[in-house]
Amino acid sequence: RRRGIPEAILAEGKTPAEVAALATTALDTTGRALVTRADEAAASAVAAAVGDADADATVDRDDRAGTVVVHAADFEPPSLDAAVAVVAAGTADAAVAGEAAVVAREVGAAVDRVDDVGVANLDRILDQVDRVREADAVVVAAGREGALPTVVAGLVDAPVIAAPVSTGYGVGGEGVAALEGALQSCSVLTTVNVDAGFVAGAQAGLIARAVDAARAE
Amino acid sequence: RRRGIPEAILAEGKTPAEVAALATTALDTTGRALVTRADEAAASAVAAAVGDADADATVDRDDRAGTVVVHAADFEPPSLDAAVAVVAAGTADAAVAGEAAVVAREVGAAVDRVDDVGVANLDRILDQVDRVREADAVVVAAGREGALPTVVAGLVDAPVIAAPVSTGYGVGGEGVAALEGALQSCSVLTTVNVDAGFVAGAQAGLIARAVDAARAE
Amino acid sequence: RRRGIPEAILAEGKTPAEVAALATTALDTTGRALVTRADEAAASAVAAAVGDADADATVDRDDRAGTVVVHAADFEPPSLDAAVAVVAAGTADAAVAGEAAVVAREVGAAVDRVDDVGVANLDRILDQVDRVREADAVVVAAGREGALPTVVAGLVDAPVIAAPVSTGYGVGGEGVAALEGALQSCSVLTTVNVDAGFVAGAQAGLIARAVDAARAE
Amino acid sequence: RRRGIPEAILAEGKTPAEVAALATTALDTTGRALVTRADEAAASAVAAAVGDADADATVDRDDRAGTVVVHAADFEPPSLDAAVAVVAAGTADAAVAGEAAVVAREVGAAVDRVDDVGVANLDRILDQVDRVREADAVVVAAGREGALPTVVAGLVDAPVIAAPVSTGYGVGGEGVAALEGALQSCSVLTTVNVDAGFVAGAQAGLIARAVDAARAE
Amino acid sequence: RRRGIPEAILAEGKTPAEVAALATTALDTTGRALVTRADEAAASAVAAAVGDADADATVDRDDRAGTVVVHAADFEPPSLDAAVAVVAAGTADAAVAGEAAVVAREVGAAVDRVDDVGVANLDRILDQVDRVREADAVVVAAGREGALPTVVAGLVDAPVIAAPVSTGYGVGGEGVAALEGALQSCSVLTTVNVDAGFVAGAQAGLIARAVDAARAE
Amino acid sequence: RRRGIPEAILAEGKTPAEVAALATTALDTTGRALVTRADEAAASAVAAAVGDADADATVDRDDRAGTVVVHAADFEPPSLDAAVAVVAAGTADAAVAGEAAVVAREVGAAVDRVDDVGVANLDRILDQVDRVREADAVVVAAGREGALPTVVAGLVDAPVIAAPVSTGYGVGGEGVAALEGALQSCSVLTTVNVDAGFVAGAQAGLIARAVDAARAE
Amino acid sequence: RRRGIPEAILAEGKTPAEVAALATTALDTTGRALVTRADEAAASAVAAAVGDADADATVDRDDRAGTVVVHAADFEPPSLDAAVAVVAAGTADAAVAGEAAVVAREVGAAVDRVDDVGVANLDRILDQVDRVREADAVVVAAGREGALPTVVAGLVDAPVIAAPVSTGYGVGGEGVAALEGALQSCSVLTTVNVDAGFVAGAQAGLIARAVDAARAE
Amino acid sequence: RRRGIPEAILAEGKTPAEVAALATTALDTTGRALVTRADEAAASAVAAAVGDADADATVDRDDRAGTVVVHAADFEPPSLDAAVAVVAAGTADAAVAGEAAVVAREVGAAVDRVDDVGVANLDRILDQVDRVREADAVVVAAGREGALPTVVAGLVDAPVIAAPVSTGYGVGGEGVAALEGALQSCSVLTTVNVDAGFVAGAQAGLIARAVDAARAE
Ligand SMILES: Nc1ncnc2c1ncn2[C@@H]1O[C@H](COP(=O)(O)O)[C@@H](O)[C@H]1O
Ligand SMILES: Nc1ncnc2c1ncn2[C@@H]1O[C@H](COP(=O)(O)O)[C@@H](O)[C@H]1O
Ligand SMILES: Nc1ncnc2c1ncn2[C@@H]1O[C@H](COP(=O)(O)O)[C@@H](O)[C@H]1O
Ligand SMILES: Nc1ncnc2c1ncn2[C@@H]1O[C@H](COP(=O)(O)O)[C@@H](O)[C@H]1O
Ligand SMILES: [Mg+2]
Ligand SMILES: [Mg+2]
Ligand SMILES: [Mg+2]
Ligand SMILES: [Mg+2]
Ligand SMILES: [Mg+2]
Ligand SMILES: [Mg+2]
Ligand SMILES: [Mg+2]
Ligand SMILES: [Mg+2]
Repeated sequence: RRRGIPEAILAEGKTPAEVAALATTALDTTGRALVTRADEAAASAVAAAVGDADADATVDRDDRAGTVVVHAADFEPPSLDAAVAVVAAGTADAAVAGEAAVVAREVGAAVDRVDDVGVANLDRILDQVDRVREADAVVVAAGREGALPTVVAGLVDAPVIAAPVSTGYGVGGEGVAALEGALQSCSVLTTVNVDAGFVAGAQAGLIARAVDAARAE
Repeated sequence: RRRGIPEAILAEGKTPAEVAALATTALDTTGRALVTRADEAAASAVAAAVGDADADATVDRDDRAGTVVVHAADFEPPSLDAAVAVVAAGTADAAVAGEAAVVAREVGAAVDRVDDVGVANLDRILDQVDRVREADAVVVAAGREGALPTVVAGLVDAPVIAAPVSTGYGVGGEGVAALEGALQSCSVLTTVNVDAGFVAGAQAGLIARAVDAARAE
Repeated sequence: RRRGIPEAILAEGKTPAEVAALATTALDTTGRALVTRADEAAASAVAAAVGDADADATVDRDDRAGTVVVHAADFEPPSLDAAVAVVAAGTADAAVAGEAAVVAREVGAAVDRVDDVGVANLDRILDQVDRVREADAVVVAAGREGALPTVVAGLVDAPVIAAPVSTGYGVGGEGVAALEGALQSCSVLTTVNVDAGFVAGAQAGLIARAVDAARAE
Repeated sequence: RRRGIPEAILAEGKTPAEVAALATTALDTTGRALVTRADEAAASAVAAAVGDADADATVDRDDRAGTVVVHAADFEPPSLDAAVAVVAAGTADAAVAGEAAVVAREVGAAVDRVDDVGVANLDRILDQVDRVREADAVVVAAGREGALPTVVAGLVDAPVIAAPVSTGYGVGGEGVAALEGALQSCSVLTTVNVDAGFVAGAQAGLIARAVDAARAE
Repeated sequence: RRRGIPEAILAEGKTPAEVAALATTALDTTGRALVTRADEAAASAVAAAVGDADADATVDRDDRAGTVVVHAADFEPPSLDAAVAVVAAGTADAAVAGEAAVVAREVGAAVDRVDDVGVANLDRILDQVDRVREADAVVVAAGREGALPTVVAGLVDAPVIAAPVSTGYGVGGEGVAALEGALQSCSVLTTVNVDAGFVAGAQAGLIARAVDAARAE
Repeated sequence: RRRGIPEAILAEGKTPAEVAALATTALDTTGRALVTRADEAAASAVAAAVGDADADATVDRDDRAGTVVVHAADFEPPSLDAAVAVVAAGTADAAVAGEAAVVAREVGAAVDRVDDVGVANLDRILDQVDRVREADAVVVAAGREGALPTVVAGLVDAPVIAAPVSTGYGVGGEGVAALEGALQSCSVLTTVNVDAGFVAGAQAGLIARAVDAARAE
Repeated sequence: RRRGIPEAILAEGKTPAEVAALATTALDTTGRALVTRADEAAASAVAAAVGDADADATVDRDDRAGTVVVHAADFEPPSLDAAVAVVAAGTADAAVAGEAAVVAREVGAAVDRVDDVGVANLDRILDQVDRVREADAVVVAAGREGALPTVVAGLVDAPVIAAPVSTGYGVGGEGVAALEGALQSCSVLTTVNVDAGFVAGAQAGLIARAVDAARAE
Repeated sequence: RRRGIPEAILAEGKTPAEVAALATTALDTTGRALVTRADEAAASAVAAAVGDADADATVDRDDRAGTVVVHAADFEPPSLDAAVAVVAAGTADAAVAGEAAVVAREVGAAVDRVDDVGVANLDRILDQVDRVREADAVVVAAGREGALPTVVAGLVDAPVIAAPVSTGYGVGGEGVAALEGALQSCSVLTTVNVDAGFVAGAQAGLIARAVDAARAE
């Protein structure tokens, strides 16, 4: 019972060879592999190993997100009639946002990325809010003071999930202020742990699945 | 833009008279009043003030949840074609679960309460899991070590929202262990802050609204 | 060397009689008394004692801010050619904002209060931003997730001082998230400790003094 | 007075040569050496040095647990009429579980390992619970949210010792949530510090010794 | 499945009437009631209610431990062939020690109390150590710097359980230093949370049950 | 709207090549580049890249501060009629002080550096205080116990901004004691986060801009 | 072995009657009683009980310090040829300073109190430093940012003991910043816990005893 | 005014060449150099540079303590008629103890080292206590649970200074439990920060100076 959420291979703390082996096994047994927190070496090792093992498989790397997605030629990816918006405050938040986006996409949601809309310049998010309002669920990745999820949840009707990012130094750094800001938000929203883009994207995917199923009724 | 979530009057830190005045004003202007964290005195003051102001209004107290809901005679409560399950580990978690349930109900969801299913005795939750699987969104209130949300999210397909409860003493007490357990969960779930039953119920309500709208399409 | 900042009598932890005695002494020796964190009893005791001691003195109570200002009839309050804006997110932030405003006013600044402009509804602050832009220094009081100081500092040119407020419960509660948010802000601003409205107002007053002196050159 | 618990050589923070020297000395003086937290280099250095020093000694490496056990040919290991179960939630918990198992075994207990029974999939632990019920003392290693010790202590009669594991990131990471979960558990259990597999295994060994002595009476 | 551990009624946070009602119900259904953290009012209410409900029941109050134990006339308390020592550092540690002792006794162990043996005067514990060595399991209650569990575990062979006590003020106060001292101990021991005398006594009771069963084999 | 504060390129976490590319782009588009937290390699890469791209640009490295400032030949730096003093307690505080100084200078303020005046030897600051009194705004960088900002704010009339420095080890280390000391100061001052010299210098620059504008009226 | 330090009766958490009983017992058995943290009621109860029990005993109350010292008529207080200075930053630090002074005096030292010399106005401590230099050991009580111990230890040759005081609110409040400041001090000094005036005074007394003994050789 | 405490060169964070240069300068200007926290490379660089600069100087390395002491041929080290005992719990505490010992020796005290007397085996400290009682001041270095300072302060009359050591992992690790244990100690003692052997030795040296001066009177 995995609720449509693909098992992910966390590359951190494993050697490139180990990651590649796990990925080809997953590809072999499930037709798909999803690797997260992969650096250059790990991603390349996966690409090479997949190339050797199954030349027809597609390999989709997102180096900023640290993800690699592999689909066997005959893998039929789920496709939901539901959309997830993934909003990011700044450049440093792109990795977490990217991880969330990949997972939501693998669950089958249509994913719309809205980047670089931090609240230090309000015009940016106000200019993009109509796009965000199209989504059935919204993930908002933000570090430092983490004000963006509160602002977005004040602007849209869909459920908002905060994804605090481990930026910032000193007291409240490493994403702590951003997480606490989500927990204390004046707007209604829920949160995942610091840098847990995978969980945020998966939860958004579960909402998209529920909406898709309801649309299909 | 309140996303269908009623403005709530937080009774904590206000005098009974202040709470009662805010409640009658809300009743007058919106046809409804929702009071949270009300003790006996506050709840009674609201009931009395509403009785004076509008004899036809209905007053619904839940003393364990600390909530009072008032509807004008002509208030038409929203009614969604979507269900929320609110699961609680033990007796001490009932207040937070109750707050979540009231809010979800006011948003219009059908709410199913499942109480006293803490993981120290697994049979209890296993016996009730089929009921929980009926819901479109699930809130799980648990304090102490807060293991229940992880267990429930391993058993159901719908999105799960943890509502950590401020039970427990010593290190990790006051709900801190339960909140951290939700943030670290091996299952996919999102969380609200300690005792934030209101937020958990409101987010479940937002999911129910999305599902209801999709069903209506 | 008090830099134009009046010595304040902190009422918290003192009996009404003690506060009243300190206030009449201050009035007697400096022509002025400033009491902070006064509850009803303390404020009334000050008013009564001043009435007895010097019938011509003016007594200015702000019960929400918890302040009492007393001026002898012949006291000539400083008057600076400089303005301070004091911005507050919500009702619960009014006490800290009020404390800051009183101090800035006693230093001699023209003070403009802008209330109830929390970021959960962005229209509110956007509607008022032109007023805030008139000021030479800006204090922003906000609790919970404390997003407002960051937003304001992105909208104005003057120096912004965050005054985090001890609202919020659970992890990051009691103003901790708001303080950490100020420390991590993506906008340029400085901060004072949680609930330190006095310090925020005094620092804004020092900036106003510097600007006033420059205007007078 | 070591209560039957072998002195362990903590390899962390020592050079392979230092560890090897300490191990051969221990072998020489006590007929046994127990090395913990050994990486590849340290374990190999021990094996080589022991080979040189005493070709008849047995060397037992457990690379996942990071342990090396050396027995002189004439060393008579203690053998207790008592059993310890060592239960682990996931792969990442195997190192701590392994450390506990080695120590309990060296104290003389019969050790049964039960791996990969995390609570996100309850069937796994329910399938294995009968094996766990055979033991006189139970160690449960779990990181992240650390729910497993609570669940196990609700299923068995023997004393349960939690061994929290330093997995997890963000708030509550590095084993903190798991430790606090053990301290707040709704089931009766005691705990050791994060990653202290040695202590957990030794305490289980002390219980096994007490039971063995009682059986022998 | 309660492992021989009586369900306890935690009086804290309940009214005397509520506690008394729960106690008479427990007496009625199980032949026994165990109340913990009872103040004078709660204990007296229990005694009175039991007197009314069942004049033949015995009521055993320990006001320093905050416990009340009630046995129906025909209740046959368990009696184990195993002993638990409960050691306390100072006067302030007596409540936690007392709670542990009561629970261990109700599980059926023979309990020996050793009080006032804090390490600031080593002669005290050295004088009593032979008594402690008689026990099959040892609970050591200590607050402030919590050095006593480490010292005792260096002196006895039986398993030692630390019960940190919430004494001490300032940094490390409220039992935090004592708990951390147990987690960092140079001797082998396990710990419960601050003030969790109940859990410490119950775990000691589980060990006593295991030893008793082994003796009976 | 950057309030006259130059966008800075934070070198930390970027490769020298990335930093150099960002710097030449900034030079190209704005006539200026400001790099902070640059190590030797990053600073040299910037210098080399600028030399290639625009041989007429000036490159100003401050290796202790970790900053590089690049001005195009035709860049007209702002010049304010206002002064900022940057005071540092010890050698270890020079990097943070230097970062603050560079930013304030780029905003256009006249900057006076006062180094090595820690409070363990009061004569040092007392000897220099007249220089500090010349400034319109004062930044005080100090680590360890962070006493200097409080002492300076007791000696000057201008607004003081504390810049806590991440020196110190053990409890309260990494600048935490210094930051908390600023938050608790008996003198009126505001603070930035640990090591946030950039923010302190920028806020001092904003005050200098306000004073300059007032002088120009 | 009490090293000349009188056993103190901590009044906090005891009823006035209990404190009075302990005090008369101490008077009876040792000729002296020292009560700390006594409020009005406790101090009066001690005075009354001593009056009844031994009309010739002297009772010395210091209400600001919360201490009561009782000497039997024939008690010969120790008198050391050594001096302790007790320095306090502000009014709020007087209680802790007073507790330290009483203990040092009871150990036999000549005690010199230097009050109200906080560093926000350096002239105060500079004016008094010659008096402080007379002492053989120095206790410095300070709360808030706790800068005074560092400043004093930079001005005198004798050993300095910091006594952090639980003033201050928000982050670093309750004496935490002051304690951390002592731990991080740039000057050589040692510290006791927050509000532990008793310990600071006793340690100063031990130094005075060592010096007195050396003088007597 | 350095109170007889030599300026120390902290090698940590400096290159061997920088440390060597600072050391030869100190030797040149004061006839002495004291380097702390030196690794092999730094210590060797100092030895070589001193050899080059002044072939007659003595170089005294203590690699376990990480210290290097250099005296010019004509340097007359201070010699006090007073003794300091430096007590260490275990091997891991030797570095901090060594640092304290070196400083106390350079201040002029006779230093007695007592190693490996941790409380897990009480016989060790009891066997050595008579030596410790000879000292005029005692430093006790201990990590993990840090019980030794409390035990020693219960056994000797001289002032005791705790030097907590950054051993231990998990919650309370890195010396935190040991520091908190010192702050909460049931015995009278003062403390320095974690690993601050220099400060502990210097404070012991100041006491020795006071005693020496008194002996000389
Ligand atoms: N139990 C609750 N938990 C969290 N937020 C609440 C709760 N009750 C009311 N609120 C929110 O808190 C705000 C009420 O604040 P107030 O103006 O103090 O009554 C509103 O925005 C409510 O939606
Ligand atoms: N002093 C105590 N410390 C810890 N747990 C306790 C204590 N007393 C009772 N309990 C447990 O707490 C639960 C009682 O909760 P309640 O239903 O609120 O009475 C039961 O599971 C008891 O076994
Ligand atoms: N030393 C610094 N401290 C704090 N913020 C900085 C620093 N240097 C640059 N910044 C800000 O951090 C952001 C740069 O982020 P990045 O896009 O990663 O270069 C900009 O908003 C800068 O104004
Ligand atoms: N103000 C105080 N601060 C710290 N320790 C104290 C204080 N007063 C008394 N003590 C010590 O605390 C113990 C008193 O504990 P008690 O038996 O509860 O009265 C004795 O060892 C006293 O020496
Ligand atoms: Mg952000
Ligand atoms: Mg629970
Ligand atoms: Mg806010
Ligand atoms: Mg787990
Ligand atoms: Mg103790
Ligand atoms: Mg400093
Ligand atoms: Mg102070
Ligand atoms: Mg130790």
